[in-house]
Amino acid sequence: MGEFDLIETYFRWDNESDFASEEGSFSDNSNVEDNGVKIGIGDDAAVLQLEHNHQLVTSIDTLISGVHFPEQTSPEAIGHKALAVNLSDLAAMGAKAKWFTLALTLPGTDHVWLKGFSSGLKKIANQHSVSLVGGDTTRGPLAISIQVMGTIENNQSLLRSGAQADDKIFVTGTPGDAAVGLASIQGVLDSDNLILSSEDKTICEARLNYPTARLKESEIIKEYATSCIDVSDGLLQDLGHILKKSKVSAVLDPKQLPLSESLQKMPQDTAIHYALNGGDDYELLFTVPVDKCETFMQAVSEKITTRVTMIGEITSNSVDEKQESSVILDPQGFNLRGNGYNHFNDDVNDGS
Amino acid sequence: MGEFDLIETYFRWDNESDFASEEGSFSDNSNVEDNGVKIGIGDDAAVLQLEHNHQLVTSIDTLISGVHFPEQTSPEAIGHKALAVNLSDLAAMGAKAKWFTLALTLPGTDHVWLKGFSSGLKKIANQHSVSLVGGDTTRGPLAISIQVMGTIENNQSLLRSGAQADDKIFVTGTPGDAAVGLASIQGVLDSDNLILSSEDKTICEARLNYPTARLKESEIIKEYATSCIDVSDGLLQDLGHILKKSKVSAVLDPKQLPLSESLQKMPQDTAIHYALNGGDDYELLFTVPVDKCETFMQAVSEKITTRVTMIGEITSNSVDEKQESSVILDPQGFNLRGNGYNHFNDDVNDGS
Repeated sequence: MGEFDLIETYFRWDNESDFASEEGSFSDNSNVEDNGVKIGIGDDAAVLQLEHNHQLVTSIDTLISGVHFPEQTSPEAIGHKALAVNLSDLAAMGAKAKWFTLALTLPGTDHVWLKGFSSGLKKIANQHSVSLVGGDTTRGPLAISIQVMGTIENNQSLLRSGAQADDKIFVTGTPGDAAVGLASIQGVLDSDNLILSSEDKTICEARLNYPTARLKESEIIKEYATSCIDVSDGLLQDLGHILKKSKVSAVLDPKQLPLSESLQKMPQDTAIHYALNGGDDYELLFTVPVDKCETFMQAVSEKITTRVTMIGEITSNSVDEKQESSVILDPQGFNLRGNGYNHFNDDVNDGS
Repeated sequence: MGEFDLIETYFRWDNESDFASEEGSFSDNSNVEDNGVKIGIGDDAAVLQLEHNHQLVTSIDTLISGVHFPEQTSPEAIGHKALAVNLSDLAAMGAKAKWFTLALTLPGTDHVWLKGFSSGLKKIANQHSVSLVGGDTTRGPLAISIQVMGTIENNQSLLRSGAQADDKIFVTGTPGDAAVGLASIQGVLDSDNLILSSEDKTICEARLNYPTARLKESEIIKEYATSCIDVSDGLLQDLGHILKKSKVSAVLDPKQLPLSESLQKMPQDTAIHYALNGGDDYELLFTVPVDKCETFMQAVSEKITTRVTMIGEITSNSVDEKQESSVILDPQGFNLRGNGYNHFNDDVNDGS
C-alpha cells in the first residue's frame, strides 16, 4: 500500500458530513463549506476560510511513543490523545477549534493499528467538529505531530500574561489523575505500597489515555478570565508560566485542590503531590478578577457540569525584573517542590 | 537544559526584525506586526492575523533522518530543507508564505547540531520573510515536522485540478539533479560506471540538500497557470497527480526536458531517467493555456532568471472515469516507466 492509498484508506473521512473533502466534491458537502474548508486533503496544501474579523490561532504538538504515552497504549487512545492535547492548547487561548493537520511517522503499515488510530482520532474530531485538512505519512519510529488551527474574534485571545494582583486562581477537573494513571501503568504505585483498587486504576489510566479537551469550558472561561494555560507539565509548573508572563506571584492552598475520588483514597500528601506536579491532565488553569468570581461561578453552574475549583490567588503585581515569580503554598510548612514534566530535564550531559 | 531553554536559545530570533516575538515586546517590533503575528512563541498557541479577503493556505511535512535525507546530512542543510519542502507546497498553490511552526524530535541535546540546524532554518526563513510562530521539542529519534502557513486572495489558489486539453506543460529549473546528488552520496553512480566529476557531484548534492522553494517563480506562474504541483516524488509521478485530478492525459517530449550541465554529461537515457523519475527537486510543474504561453514566457524572461521550460502538452479532457490518466512519452518507443518516490512502497508485508 502506497502513501497515497494509506491516506485515502484511513484519513479520508469524506462520507462524514463534517470532514474535509477534495475540491471536486465540495458542492455536495455543505457542512465542510460551513467549516471554512475550501480545499482539504488532496492538493499541495489546504485552503481555509476564516470568518470576518477573526484571527488564526494555531499550535503544534508531537507525541512520541514511550515519551508521551506508554508503548502499550492502544492505537485508539493514541489517536484520541494526539488531537486532545492540541485542542487543549486552543481551549487555553479561548479559541474555537476548526481544523487540524496530521504528520504521522510509522515503522510500517500495520492495518490493525491504523484502523484503531484512525478511529480514535475521528471520534474526538467529530465530537469537537474539527476537520482533518492535510496530512503526511512517513516511515520511521512511531511519532504523531498534529497542528491544530482555530479562530477567535480579533484580539480576544486569552493569554498567559494577563493575571493581576488579587485575581483568584481556578482549575477545571481533578488534576493529578493522569499522573496516578501513569504511575499505575509503570507499577510505581504498587512499589510505593499504594495499592489502588483496579477500578481506581482504570479510572486514572483513562484520564491519562483519554484526556478531555476543555473547549466547552473555555467558552465560558474566556468571558471572565484574565489569563489561562492548560496543565500539561503539572499544575505548579504551568502556574509558574502564568506568573512569569504576568510578572506576579501567587499563593495556593493545597487543601483546596480538587482531588478525584481515586486520589482521596491515597495518603493526603501523596495525593497533593500528584495534583500539584503530575502532568498530562490537560485541565485549564486560569485567573479571574475577584469581583467577577461570583458571576463566573454562577455561569459555570448553569452551563456545564465540569468541576471548577478556586485553589488560590495572585498576590502581587510588583515582581522585580530579577526576582523570580513564586508560588507560596499555604499553609506554610507544606514543603513541596514542583518540577512538573520536562522531557529534556533528564539529559545530564548537555553542559547546561 | 530544559525544553523551554532549548526553544529560547535556538528558536527565539527576537532580535531579527522579521521574527515572532512574545506579546510583551510587539510594540517594539513593527515588522512582526506587519507580518500579522499577534502572538508568537511563548503562549499556548500563536495568534495570526490574515489580510482582509484572504484565505489561509497550509501544509505539513515531516523529514526523517535516513528517509528524507541521508544520515550524514549537515544540520544546516536539514534546517534549510525542512522549511524549503514546506515552502514549496505553498509555491505550488500560488500562496504567499508567512508563518511556520516547528515540531522537533531529537535524540538528545546536541548543541553543535542545534546551532547548525537553527542557523540553516533561520537563513531560509529570513530569505522568504516567514516567521517561526510556535514549536515543540520532544525526545526521540531525529524527526522534523514543519507546518507552513501562507495566505492567498480568496479563491485564487492554484490547484492540481485545473489542467485543460491543449494546455502546455512547463517545469522550472532542471529536474533530476537532486536524485543524481542522492545517488552520488549513496555511491550508486560509481557502481553504474557513471563517474561524475567532483564538481558535478557537489552541484547535484547541493540541489538535494539545499532545494530552492520557488516562491518568486510562483508569483508569476499563478497569473497564467491552470494547474500546478511541486516535484517532490518525481516529475512523472507528480504529473500523474495533475492528470488524475484534472481528468486529462498528456504527452511529454523527453528531448525537451531541461537537463543541467551535470546531467548533460551523463548518457542521455540515464539523464532522462533521473529527470523524469528523480524526487526531491521541488521544482514547479504546471500547465498554461496555449494562448497565454507567449505572454507568460515574456513575463518570465523579464522578471526572473530561473529556467522555465515547456516539456509537453495536455492531450485530452475526456478521460473515462474508469480509464487511468496517462502520460505518453514522445517519441514513442522511449520506454520509461515512472514510479517516483513512495516511502511506503518498499513495504511488502502489508497485505496490499
